Amino acid sequence: MSVQILLPRWIIPVIPRHTVYTDHALVIQGEKIIALQATADALSRYPSAEIIKLPDHALMPGMINLHTHSAMTLLRGFADDLPLMRWLNEHIWPAEGTHVSDEFVFDGTKLAIAEMIAGGTTCCNDMYFHHGAVARAAIDTQFRITVGCSILEFPTPYASNADDYIRKALACRDEFIGEDLVQFTLAPHAPYTVSDATFRRIITLADELELAIHCHIHESADEIAGSLKEYGVRPLERLAELGLLDSPLIAAHMVHTTESEIALLAKKGIHIAHNPASNLKLASGIAPISQQLAAGINVGIGTDGAASNNKLDMFAEMRLAALLAKGQSDNPEAVPAWQALEMATINGATALGLQDKIGSLEVGKQADVIALNLAQAGTQPCYDPISHLVYAADRTQVSDVWIAGRAVYRRHEHQSLNFAEVLSTARHWQGKIQDSIAPQTN
Amino acid sequence: MSVQILLPRWIIPVIPRHTVYTDHALVIQGEKIIALQATADALSRYPSAEIIKLPDHALMPGMINLHTHSAMTLLRGFADDLPLMRWLNEHIWPAEGTHVSDEFVFDGTKLAIAEMIAGGTTCCNDMYFHHGAVARAAIDTQFRITVGCSILEFPTPYASNADDYIRKALACRDEFIGEDLVQFTLAPHAPYTVSDATFRRIITLADELELAIHCHIHESADEIAGSLKEYGVRPLERLAELGLLDSPLIAAHMVHTTESEIALLAKKGIHIAHNPASNLKLASGIAPISQQLAAGINVGIGTDGAASNNKLDMFAEMRLAALLAKGQSDNPEAVPAWQALEMATINGATALGLQDKIGSLEVGKQADVIALNLAQAGTQPCYDPISHLVYAADRTQVSDVWIAGRAVYRRHEHQSLNFAEVLSTARHWQGKIQDSIAPQTN
Repeated sequence: MSVQILLPRWIIPVIPRHTVYTDHALVIQGEKIIALQATADALSRYPSAEIIKLPDHALMPGMINLHTHSAMTLLRGFADDLPLMRWLNEHIWPAEGTHVSDEFVFDGTKLAIAEMIAGGTTCCNDMYFHHGAVARAAIDTQFRITVGCSILEFPTPYASNADDYIRKALACRDEFIGEDLVQFTLAPHAPYTVSDATFRRIITLADELELAIHCHIHESADEIAGSLKEYGVRPLERLAELGLLDSPLIAAHMVHTTESEIALLAKKGIHIAHNPASNLKLASGIAPISQQLAAGINVGIGTDGAASNNKLDMFAEMRLAALLAKGQSDNPEAVPAWQALEMATINGATALGLQDKIGSLEVGKQADVIALNLAQAGTQPCYDPISHLVYAADRTQVSDVWIAGRAVYRRHEHQSLNFAEVLSTARHWQGKIQDSIAPQTN
Repeated sequence: MSVQILLPRWIIPVIPRHTVYTDHALVIQGEKIIALQATADALSRYPSAEIIKLPDHALMPGMINLHTHSAMTLLRGFADDLPLMRWLNEHIWPAEGTHVSDEFVFDGTKLAIAEMIAGGTTCCNDMYFHHGAVARAAIDTQFRITVGCSILEFPTPYASNADDYIRKALACRDEFIGEDLVQFTLAPHAPYTVSDATFRRIITLADELELAIHCHIHESADEIAGSLKEYGVRPLERLAELGLLDSPLIAAHMVHTTESEIALLAKKGIHIAHNPASNLKLASGIAPISQQLAAGINVGIGTDGAASNNKLDMFAEMRLAALLAKGQSDNPEAVPAWQALEMATINGATALGLQDKIGSLEVGKQADVIALNLAQAGTQPCYDPISHLVYAADRTQVSDVWIAGRAVYRRHEHQSLNFAEVLSTARHWQGKIQDSIAPQTN
């Protein structure tokens, strides 16, 4: 297997914590990292390797987008500046009802992957419909994905009821067994769209099939008020009673958490996917991640879908997470740069059960690696590359991306997808969607 | 004078409000916009003009950074994740005390301008020392600047006391009279660093010389507590009693404002420079801009200095302002995209007294214009270019920038400065500063 030696100016491995190596090389063989050592040693140990010089670059693990709805890129900016339920009921759900299909999802997911790869994201935790199309888009573009199979009670063009969603999820999971870059979760949409009986069935299946669960929880105050009215308890208490917190669980949003809820989540080892931009944009609130992290909860970062963000930019999201935590907690020392970087990488990997495979640059792990050119006006001078990666870098400074050792982006050019085709497909969908529904005019 | 016809896909003029033109041309003659009309009409009216095709681009007014300390780019990322007063006392002020000079300020301001121009900012409202060096850096790079002449009581290497700062400010202002791109403000640093007597003197001078005043006000809770202890009133009340609110005043930050303070600011026509990223990073708080705007206050947007942000990215700042306003006010309809765009352009112009010259694309105004290429994965599809400019665009999508009709950035290349030289100068300063003071190691 061919060996690549990457020679960046800085290596930020994430593990060990808060560390920067200079004069070091990262050596990749096949899909794995086989060495991280002094440059001179690497060059003499692998004399026939391909040398990749990155003289102005920082090398770090690929970003892990812990909560997104990839295909919704096709609805990017379709409706803005609205409350969650009006946004869903009057704009997003009608458009989805008319257009979402295997083709829509395949094309939208590819567009999302083009955006994510170019911005240094090498893995995402998706949640949507037409799971096969999601998986195929990722395989087609050599992108690492966890496909969340949405389950709800009400019918969509994809499935007629909860049983139908579950049946399709399981069939799809079977179809892609053996695909190295793809894994699945069961994704009950939210406490307000899924019944107790369905949650119980999902918990049993997740246990039998060793699948994690991915669910929107405590996103908005309305959700909590609705649960109090319908069930007499807050959603988390209901889910705990149903046994959901005893499964491996990624709770997306978790904006509203009391002290005792934070303690419960920590005790149960629940992972949180923090989505700061979407939570602000929909006025859902500001999650107390500083307190959640201090309690020992594993908190990763997600962009949410492009329709409520409106970009899948993990650098912007990581920066916002770090800034907002300081404002929310009245503490400028909250979530320092190195911790924000962990959230966007190893914490995401841990949430996905992939902490032994990805999330840091360590020997034996998959080579999911990105390089950023810091020789730009906005990242000079550079006293501390970790600070710049979090507070100053633009995602467009990502020049090269490897996923499982394969260069999917080299010198700012996509290698695993035809970018012109992806753009022209996006325009095709825009035309179709505009023809069918007049966009919001504010 | 030569005529340029710009043919973008979309023109967002900002005035009229919330408007997008397609099939329109912007015509520039010399330093001014002379027409904004249907493409066919422009082409037939100016047959010998230079045609600039921008087929995938949105054209908008240049961004106006309403509060920054440009030269502090040289301290970008020098100290992070610290409270304001420790950050100032233990890191920033010692480094400034050792290094700040005409040369430091000239070089640091040029680096800031390189970053700002490439990110679509065509004008900034600066506040720093060595004002002549600031003005020369702007003239040298054909950048529009308002030079804020810092005034405080305590000595720095630049001046020995308030009288000395004022004397230097006035001398500098005289030196650059007649420079079209440069104007001056008097910039008392903050209520906690400037005495009543000095404020009175500044107010008199501002009135005599028709200068505006630029001052940090109500940035942190500590500032307010300190004023209550020392003067028995909140800073704004003290400043109002001194008469400062009767001068043209740009109040930077204004994070903490009561209802009656908002009413007073509105009544007095005070301009606010909102700095959302810096206010979060230093845990100063979240300014209630939604309430401030609703009261009729003119609120613009600034990045603050690169040492507390850490980027001079007005697109990131505009997006953050729009998102944060929704979270702060629990209202997803607060500060919609078109209003955020106004804040970053015409509101900044109005605060600077330049509303008849810049801040919108209108016939007769200076041609301070930027073009963004929206044919990128992150801005496709495009249902609404205003939404994309605010919520989805990266500043690196800015391809072309004109200031007073001069193309200072064309096809992503600087035209008014030597970029390689700017970067190498930044590295030179990094070496000097690192040699003199060990950077923070967290």
